[in-house]
Amino acid sequence: MARTPEAGSDVHRERHREVLETAARLIREQGYEAASVQDIAAACGLTKAGLYYYIRSKEDLLLEIMSYGMDIFEERVLLPVLAIADPVERLKECMERNIHLVTEERSKEVTVILHEHETLTGAARQQINARKKRYVHFLEASFEEAMREGRIRRVEPRVAAFSFLGMVLWIYKWFRLDGKIPADRLAAEMQDLFFGGLEIPPAPAKRARHPRRPKAAHPARRAHAGAVA
Amino acid sequence: MARTPEAGSDVHRERHREVLETAARLIREQGYEAASVQDIAAACGLTKAGLYYYIRSKEDLLLEIMSYGMDIFEERVLLPVLAIADPVERLKECMERNIHLVTEERSKEVTVILHEHETLTGAARQQINARKKRYVHFLEASFEEAMREGRIRRVEPRVAAFSFLGMVLWIYKWFRLDGKIPADRLAAEMQDLFFGGLEIPPAPAKRARHPRRPKAAHPARRAHAGAVA
Repeated sequence: MARTPEAGSDVHRERHREVLETAARLIREQGYEAASVQDIAAACGLTKAGLYYYIRSKEDLLLEIMSYGMDIFEERVLLPVLAIADPVERLKECMERNIHLVTEERSKEVTVILHEHETLTGAARQQINARKKRYVHFLEASFEEAMREGRIRRVEPRVAAFSFLGMVLWIYKWFRLDGKIPADRLAAEMQDLFFGGLEIPPAPAKRARHPRRPKAAHPARRAHAGAVA
Repeated sequence: MARTPEAGSDVHRERHREVLETAARLIREQGYEAASVQDIAAACGLTKAGLYYYIRSKEDLLLEIMSYGMDIFEERVLLPVLAIADPVERLKECMERNIHLVTEERSKEVTVILHEHETLTGAARQQINARKKRYVHFLEASFEEAMREGRIRRVEPRVAAFSFLGMVLWIYKWFRLDGKIPADRLAAEMQDLFFGGLEIPPAPAKRARHPRRPKAAHPARRAHAGAVA
């Protein structure tokens, strides 16, 4: 089969991703300051000039790694759950997906860099921080919605959102793929730990006050649209 | 008043602590690799030779900062709660104390370094890791004890311990002293979020099966002593 320009672009994109993942691993191992452009090129099997085909500068490389980490996160965690109508189911699914992201070998490195490195400055920093904040606001809005709909007991949405994040993102510090607790079980245990104590039990009195009903999609996006009637 | 040798030691110790705190702040701001011994000395108002009066090497300095961080943590969080007989009260008090530690300006820097830097090697690394593991084991044992005594519903102790840690230690990434949520309220909200859903409500049936009674001190230390009769 002849290589179309699109296939060429795919090969290029795949190589670009490999460069970002290798660089992420090296920066994690050696630290951003200590890992030289020369080291990163060598680890990618490239000359320094070859590496500069993919990146413009070292800070640009870090921004690209973080943007790539945010792309993976949004694609695999945030976007698939936005359409889940029930806020508690949405949050649970989101937790499960995020746990898988931080436990999988391949995606782990770029995810960790997102949360460990504050080396970016100026516009690059703002760009990444804005994407992180979007996630926090999505979580806060989902907790608020769950309370409004009588699905969970009262919590402070900001504290709930950051507790959720802390539980999930701290995992990379202790989780071992070959450890006693596989990722699936970890996700189930954490969902139970967090939401098992939040959800309002379906007692008849509560059910009567807050009947479950089909809801419109993307409810997090209308979180501030006012109280549910 | 004449300066006794003890007072002299106190002054020395206080100066030593200042050096560790200043160095911790600089390492946090610049990164361990980027912060030179010269920079650290200058920030402490010392010559390089003067700094070497307090430390032996840069890696030794990092070990000292981490040991100091663990000292503060054990003194202010772990040791005061060991004697609390009820495992849930012990864990709650522990959470509150740890939250105060990670939100206070002075202790924050050395606490953060403990969790962000993996630069130590060999025996120094093992020494710090052993002290961290002691905390994890204390938490696991306390959760196990709370289950055995019917004080909380069933959870996986390891997941509960690391969820507790993740919630508490992630705080330094987002908490602002001048933010909307003061540390006291944060501690109360997080205790409620975590334990509000774990504690078994005092329903008569449960009470009859697991009567509350006075317990011996230091129960975490006998966590593996067997099931409660």
